[in-house]
Order: sequence, then C-alpha cells, then structure tokens
Amino acid sequence: MNILSFEQKQQSINEQLQNKAEQLNLPEQLKSAVLYALNAGGKRLRPILMLAAYNAFSEDEERVSDVVIALELIHTYSLIHDDLPAMDDDDFRRGQPTIHKQYDEATAILVGDGLLTLAFQVVSSSAKLEAEEKVFTLAELSKASGLEGMIAGQYLDLKGEGEHLTVEELSRIHRHKTGELIRGAVKIGAYLGGATPPQIEALDEYASYLGLIFQVQDDILDVTGDEEEIGKPVGSDVSLDKGTYPKLLGINGAIEKRDDYMERAQKALREARVENTQLMDIIELFGKRSY
Amino acid sequence: MNILSFEQKQQSINEQLQNKAEQLNLPEQLKSAVLYALNAGGKRLRPILMLAAYNAFSEDEERVSDVVIALELIHTYSLIHDDLPAMDDDDFRRGQPTIHKQYDEATAILVGDGLLTLAFQVVSSSAKLEAEEKVFTLAELSKASGLEGMIAGQYLDLKGEGEHLTVEELSRIHRHKTGELIRGAVKIGAYLGGATPPQIEALDEYASYLGLIFQVQDDILDVTGDEEEIGKPVGSDVSLDKGTYPKLLGINGAIEKRDDYMERAQKALREARVENTQLMDIIELFGKRSY
Repeated sequence: MNILSFEQKQQSINEQLQNKAEQLNLPEQLKSAVLYALNAGGKRLRPILMLAAYNAFSEDEERVSDVVIALELIHTYSLIHDDLPAMDDDDFRRGQPTIHKQYDEATAILVGDGLLTLAFQVVSSSAKLEAEEKVFTLAELSKASGLEGMIAGQYLDLKGEGEHLTVEELSRIHRHKTGELIRGAVKIGAYLGGATPPQIEALDEYASYLGLIFQVQDDILDVTGDEEEIGKPVGSDVSLDKGTYPKLLGINGAIEKRDDYMERAQKALREARVENTQLMDIIELFGKRSY
Repeated sequence: MNILSFEQKQQSINEQLQNKAEQLNLPEQLKSAVLYALNAGGKRLRPILMLAAYNAFSEDEERVSDVVIALELIHTYSLIHDDLPAMDDDDFRRGQPTIHKQYDEATAILVGDGLLTLAFQVVSSSAKLEAEEKVFTLAELSKASGLEGMIAGQYLDLKGEGEHLTVEELSRIHRHKTGELIRGAVKIGAYLGGATPPQIEALDEYASYLGLIFQVQDDILDVTGDEEEIGKPVGSDVSLDKGTYPKLLGINGAIEKRDDYMERAQKALREARVENTQLMDIIELFGKRSY
C-alpha cells in the first residue's frame, strides 16, 4: 500500500466530503447550501495533517475516512459561523460569497450547526472504527472545538478587536482558536495509527508549534499576500484592528518567529522518531504556504 | 434505592447543569452567558423523560448523569439559536431576555455552538459509561439533533412561515424539530437501563406519540395559555403566521387529536410491559401541562 501525496490526499478528502453530503436526505435548498459550503475549496489542512500523523505509523488511510470527514466538517462550520454579520462579518471566503450572502443568515447558522453535529454523527456511527477509537476521537474533537477550546478563542478574538494585545495575549487567542484543533488532528491520527504514548507526547509538542506557525504565516500573508490567491482583501485583519504578529513584531520579526517555530517543530519530530515522514513536509506546507 | 419523583429529578438536573457550568474555565463574560443560559429555568422534560425510560429498567440514576446533562445542553443550544434575530427573533424566553438581548448576538451564537459541543464532550469523556454505551448515546444524540433531524425541522419551520401547510406537512416539521430528540431521549434511557430490543421498539412508538402530544399541547397553549405562565406573548405563533394545530383543526379538534395520541402512547407502554412506571405519568406531564 502506498501513502498518498498531499495532492492526492486533498483530492480524496474532497471526494469523501462530496459523497457524504450527497447522501444526506434534506430539503432541497438546505442541501444545496450544505454542498455549497463543502465545495468551496479550502486546503483541507486539518485532515491532511491527521492523515500524515496516521501514516507515520499506519498505511490504510481508508480506515480513518470518517475522521477525515469529521475534521473538515468542524473546520467548515467554524468558518461559516465566524463569517456571520454578528461575528467577523465577511462577505467573501476563498473568493466566493459566504453562505449568509449566497443564501441567508438563518441558513448559514443552521448549516454551521448541522455540519458540527454531522461531524460527531459520522464518527459515532462509523463502521470502520472500534468503540474505544470512536470515544477517543470524539473526546478529542469535542474538547478541541469546545467552549474551552475553539469557542473561547473566537470569543477572545472578537472581544479583543481594537484592544492593544501583547504577544502573549495574541498567542493565547490563537492557541485556542486554531491551535487546539490542529493538536487534536495530530493526536487522533497518531493514536489511531498506533503511536506509543511518548511519541504522542512529542507529536503534541510538534502540533503546538504547527499551530503557531500557521497563525504567524496567516498574519504575514495578510500583509504581503496576493489578494486573489488568499481570497480576501489584503490587510483586512489590520483594518479590523486585530492584533497580528507583524503589527507587534514588524514583518521581519514575524518571519524570524515563524522560522524559529519551524525549527522547534522539526526537533519535536526527531524526538518522536518520525522525522522521515510527511509530518516533516507539513512544516513547510504550513510555514511556506502562499495562500 | 428509590426512584426520584419528577420534581426531585428536575432539581437534581438543575444542580448537575449548574455544577458542570461552574467547572468550565472560560473568559468571565462568556462564562456568565453560559450560566445565564443554563439557569434560565425550563422544564427539563428531555432529561426527565430519559431518566423515566432508564428507571423503567434500572434504578441507579447517577450512572447516566452525563447523558442527563448532554440532553439539556442540546435542547438549550437549540433554543438559543432559534431565538436569534435571523431565526425566530424572540426577545424573551421563559419571561427573561434571550441571550442575544442580555449579551449580544455573537455571544448567543458562540454559547449555542459551545453548549452543543459540550454535550458531545460530556458523554465522550464520561467516567461512568462503557465505550459501547457512549457510542450508542452519541450516535443517537447526533442523529436526533443533526441535519436530517432537528436542523431540517427548524429549517422547514422557518421557511414554512406564511405558507399554507397541511396537517401532514406540519407534523413532518415537528417530527424533525422536536420529535427526534424526544425519541432519542427515550431510546437512550431504555438502552442504558437494559431494555430488550422489542421493548425499545415499542418505546420508540410511545416516544413518537409523545412528540406529537408535546407539539399539539404547545399550540393549544399558544391560544389558551396564561402569558405569564408560558413566558411569551399568547398568540405569538399565530401572529408569526406559523402553521399550528388549532389553526388547522380548530381548538376542539386539536384537543381531540392530543387525547387520541395520549391513548396511543398508553397502548405502546402496555406493549412494552412498562405501563406501571413513570413513563405513564409522563404522558400526562406532556399532554396536560399548562406552560
């Protein structure tokens, strides 16, 4: 069995999401909105990351396909709700109208709620995982995306707009808002693949740095990126007066920070003895991405 | 061990919800909003129903306390999101300002998302249930509250406003919007208590009628109820031009319908051979409630 490349993984993830959505028995317009949300593209970084962690120990990607779907459903739900008028009020996402613009606000709220719930449904009713594996996966997913995780992060992010944040406060927000689900993806993948507890611990450190790399690069792209490539106006976070790394450290300081985190992530991989796996390439994928 | 009365169950449920919320480590205002949502009262019908189904076969209520919490969390989340301006736009719930009025809309969206996710977290990380029991519970909860269940129901309800609905269309909406979670509560309680598969099947029929009884009575109260007792303006559903049973059948027709469903629910209990349990009293609790 061969391990799929990132591009192949991405394509396979897109197909799995599409199939799952097609099977749903829903009122026509609601189904159309669900398909719109799941077909809007996206890099599928979280399921790719989970698969890379899994592949460091196991090959059969098909066995964890329901976890793949669940991770991307949770991520998609969080984007839909973050974009709502009462939240970040974004009209575009990846160059397309957001759900509440394309349909309406009620539909966006309900599709978000529905995708979140579907994530838990897909894992709990999976025909491929053992009960213990499902429970581990569901506990990690719900913790990462829960009140003390992603929700607290989004709350602090919203309420922190216009405030003068320190680097510590900023990284607290991102640790919750994006970091926890990235850590959850790695932990679940490693556990399902058969990593030992010390390996899982080292990989958790790796994943923590990965979360930081992701966010610093996001902020760098908001300043230096190509509007068409990143799919939203350059500088939109600065104009919302959000705390960003370049604002706090300067653009060169932010780049240095990112590179330092990349080295630390590599070191953690060597500790877990999985440095010759796709997890190493993921560091580049997160840190050097241009959109 | 004694089986708690409905009043004792309700008090115990309130305490458990309060304890769970107190333990959360959250930004101050977010935690305040979570406590506000969970302390707003409510009849706690779903967890009471689950406990009554459980008690028909087992006594140790403490063992299923995490399921109690999860059911009420899901119900509370659904009310918070249903009340949002983009949805039913309700300023009051049980006589108190709704979360988006008391706090703001972003907080209401996030608290709803958070309570939903917490439901799955509480069950998946429960120290009292076996892995197989958790998986059964999570699969039922996520299905009932999911896209094809509660979400489709709320979607059809919203989009059906102002349309002329038939009794069949109306009951389709309610079967999804409220009926599925009521069925889930009974099925989970019976399963965890140790019911046989034929008993679970008969109880599922009982629960289906219970859902219908609940909704017909809700509609009757919207016409005949006491505004202070029901906590929202009498006739508010009629003024939203929603389909209701009294509108379609007349008030006497609706009462007849309710009484017919109550008889059918009793018959299903006798088939399951649990007619001498609290499940019998639940029929009255749902059908004869005044708020």
